[in-house]
Amino acid sequence: MTDAFWKTSLSAVEKNKILIRGYRVQDLMEHCSFGDVIYLTFTGDLPAGRQGQIIEMILTSSTDHSFLAPSIDATRFVASCGVPLQAAVAAGVIALGDHHGGAIEQCAKLLQDSVRAATTAMEVVRDFRRRKQRVPGVGHPWHTEDPRTIKLIAKAREWDIAGPHLQLAESIAAAVNLPLNIDGVISGIISDIGISWQYGRAFFILPRVVGLAAHTVEEITRERPFRAIDLKDVAYDGPPERDVPRR
Amino acid sequence: MTDAFWKTSLSAVEKNKILIRGYRVQDLMEHCSFGDVIYLTFTGDLPAGRQGQIIEMILTSSTDHSFLAPSIDATRFVASCGVPLQAAVAAGVIALGDHHGGAIEQCAKLLQDSVRAATTAMEVVRDFRRRKQRVPGVGHPWHTEDPRTIKLIAKAREWDIAGPHLQLAESIAAAVNLPLNIDGVISGIISDIGISWQYGRAFFILPRVVGLAAHTVEEITRERPFRAIDLKDVAYDGPPERDVPRR
Amino acid sequence: MTDAFWKTSLSAVEKNKILIRGYRVQDLMEHCSFGDVIYLTFTGDLPAGRQGQIIEMILTSSTDHSFLAPSIDATRFVASCGVPLQAAVAAGVIALGDHHGGAIEQCAKLLQDSVRAATTAMEVVRDFRRRKQRVPGVGHPWHTEDPRTIKLIAKAREWDIAGPHLQLAESIAAAVNLPLNIDGVISGIISDIGISWQYGRAFFILPRVVGLAAHTVEEITRERPFRAIDLKDVAYDGPPERDVPRR
Amino acid sequence: MTDAFWKTSLSAVEKNKILIRGYRVQDLMEHCSFGDVIYLTFTGDLPAGRQGQIIEMILTSSTDHSFLAPSIDATRFVASCGVPLQAAVAAGVIALGDHHGGAIEQCAKLLQDSVRAATTAMEVVRDFRRRKQRVPGVGHPWHTEDPRTIKLIAKAREWDIAGPHLQLAESIAAAVNLPLNIDGVISGIISDIGISWQYGRAFFILPRVVGLAAHTVEEITRERPFRAIDLKDVAYDGPPERDVPRR
Repeated sequence: MTDAFWKTSLSAVEKNKILIRGYRVQDLMEHCSFGDVIYLTFTGDLPAGRQGQIIEMILTSSTDHSFLAPSIDATRFVASCGVPLQAAVAAGVIALGDHHGGAIEQCAKLLQDSVRAATTAMEVVRDFRRRKQRVPGVGHPWHTEDPRTIKLIAKAREWDIAGPHLQLAESIAAAVNLPLNIDGVISGIISDIGISWQYGRAFFILPRVVGLAAHTVEEITRERPFRAIDLKDVAYDGPPERDVPRR
Repeated sequence: MTDAFWKTSLSAVEKNKILIRGYRVQDLMEHCSFGDVIYLTFTGDLPAGRQGQIIEMILTSSTDHSFLAPSIDATRFVASCGVPLQAAVAAGVIALGDHHGGAIEQCAKLLQDSVRAATTAMEVVRDFRRRKQRVPGVGHPWHTEDPRTIKLIAKAREWDIAGPHLQLAESIAAAVNLPLNIDGVISGIISDIGISWQYGRAFFILPRVVGLAAHTVEEITRERPFRAIDLKDVAYDGPPERDVPRR
Repeated sequence: MTDAFWKTSLSAVEKNKILIRGYRVQDLMEHCSFGDVIYLTFTGDLPAGRQGQIIEMILTSSTDHSFLAPSIDATRFVASCGVPLQAAVAAGVIALGDHHGGAIEQCAKLLQDSVRAATTAMEVVRDFRRRKQRVPGVGHPWHTEDPRTIKLIAKAREWDIAGPHLQLAESIAAAVNLPLNIDGVISGIISDIGISWQYGRAFFILPRVVGLAAHTVEEITRERPFRAIDLKDVAYDGPPERDVPRR
Repeated sequence: MTDAFWKTSLSAVEKNKILIRGYRVQDLMEHCSFGDVIYLTFTGDLPAGRQGQIIEMILTSSTDHSFLAPSIDATRFVASCGVPLQAAVAAGVIALGDHHGGAIEQCAKLLQDSVRAATTAMEVVRDFRRRKQRVPGVGHPWHTEDPRTIKLIAKAREWDIAGPHLQLAESIAAAVNLPLNIDGVISGIISDIGISWQYGRAFFILPRVVGLAAHTVEEITRERPFRAIDLKDVAYDGPPERDVPRR
């Protein structure tokens, strides 16, 4: 067993049988929502309460942010170049880095570490200030009252899902006098339902694939191939035209 | 309007407002499942019946197929190399090509074209035989009675979702005497609920991201960096060691 | 041997020894140019003449085409999102599809098949016209007298590298009264030096990685994170804001 | 100028003119090696000495490491799935992360920062030990006397390219009693020829694209689609088969 090249606790496949965390896939199809199955995959167990439902709500919050999202723009350019759907989608997925949804990972780790160590919001903020770093999960370039965060927080409360992690996130936001943003709220909620911070960005990647696929199809069906920018939007500030020196 | 560099009918973002196909994102979060939102994004309208539910069932069917899926193996190797989660997931997404889930696109196009043109299963099969090509959507290397296809077909019937496309897919499979596989069943169902074939592979990419993310986290947390194969599994059949000729 | 999971004729690695097509890597480093090694890798043998030199000339021709190339734009957006260098580069590489350098593959296959079958330029053109398809390798949206194609053709002639494939490409261009473009010229030359069409796009991917890496570093070092477009460049033509219907 | 959406000092394109750092592309094709052009692109100037030649030697050192490289394995799996060449190559490029060539970036930064600050090898080692981190650029799982590093160091000396950065790298290796590995040697040399650490991984990505392209073509032409592992290499240690609890 320990010598096998491939080892997993996630799934098992035999002839005519597929098990996800031990459950037969056809039973999950019959009795569970996709949100339940995500919870199962990431935690090892099916949810006892509305965790699957809040996961679906998180997914719905983040499918698309129009061209304001660099992931969408990147996929649009790639989709115009004559590539299969999954390749154009993958290019946009790569963009979901530290500055684009990736803060969910950093913020969820911070919340989970801090709650475990009983660190207060003031201590967290002081620590970031000392290292001259920005606290993750707060502030948004566009939305001052983000309808997504308002709805998620309201439902997490109503469904008794909100716990110490979301509480800490809100206290941190209050301490720096900035609104908790969508990354911060998602971080708080997934931490409160017991999901490891290492899965953090998956909650942004997954729904964004819906938007990336739709933008790919729209680019292919509505636009001409090889998306061409306008030369008037380009400024060159390198060396002027010159001759190659002869050696 | 027509001159704008970026054009879309999918979504709109203003300060504190995000519209998906015209609907406020917070309303979708409150009233719709993630399956409903996928249907909305890909067709332009919210489902009138259980289309969102069958979409969730399709997603649940395809999150993971263990190491038998090259997408999972590729992501495992990449995840071992010290890259962020979204990058490892993207590598696996790229693998979802013509031979790995991509048949959904080809098969859905075939079904939609054929139903529109009133082409029969026998005509479809004859046409493929004449071109010496394999009919997509039939046969599976592993499963003779795939529990996923059985469940999907049963529910599509029970919920009155099954229509002429799934019917044609089943007739084609019968004509070549092979079981309809998971690609074929998904193709039939998404066609029957009115989704364009161009979105076909999205129904495989989307759920597989769940599995790819989970395998990435498992690789990072349970395995050593830089996944190393065993030299005994390698055979070299190129030229023997030789000297560079002097010119 | 035949049972090994991994089989290759390309390279072999033992302790303190790396063989590329049988040659010790340190000998290749000492005696060969990078162009020679590319020729060796793709054909199995070191060049007898100036094939390595014309390959370097091809590479130099295609490192960058500024923001007029969607690959560069895509990588710029991705690079702004906080991802490692190789991830931003990979996003641009994905863009090098059928409409962006990918024609080298199609065109080289056409030339190699046609020369093998002794098909004439007129027959090639007639065949494409009959299928109402565009001949690959001719015409360019920007350059009427592309300095890269002029230089490549001149040197291929001067060095006696030009042969029947480049000749056929030029005849096809003459027959449709369009200039042979950079894809067409590269296709002709790599075919004349004996490289299989299946490697075609590699001659564009490889040099473009230089440009993609440089644009990534420039984006990271000169621009602010999360490249933001201007809302005035966006036009939304989807449904107006509306209420989710209650079911 | 400052308001343009796209800004660059790297290249400029006009009708029938392409400038790379100010030089006409056709002049670079005529008078420079590909190594020279890489040096030009990354530093802004053409090399005065043999910098282009040592760059070509670095590239030749790292095109392929057979299946011992996870990048090659990942691309092999992806290539078997029916995707275009550039997509399979991109999947392997993504793998070139912190544990797979990425150390060049970390090591070059360390060398450049340390030489600038006149930090000694002993101080560098002490600092890493204090932080309980591994020094980058030393030790190799396979090669105790790596033929690539021996050749690179010898030529860098012979050509008077070796300077304080390579010297520091060697002193660090001596201080920890491990051989300087290929990442460490490349880091030292590119630093000594004046290339910023931020381009570090490009010197591994670039040549590896040659190997990734060749392995993609070999997989497609010699192997069956959908690379299938052997079930005996899989060990599942998750929960046993179980029923979905009814709620």
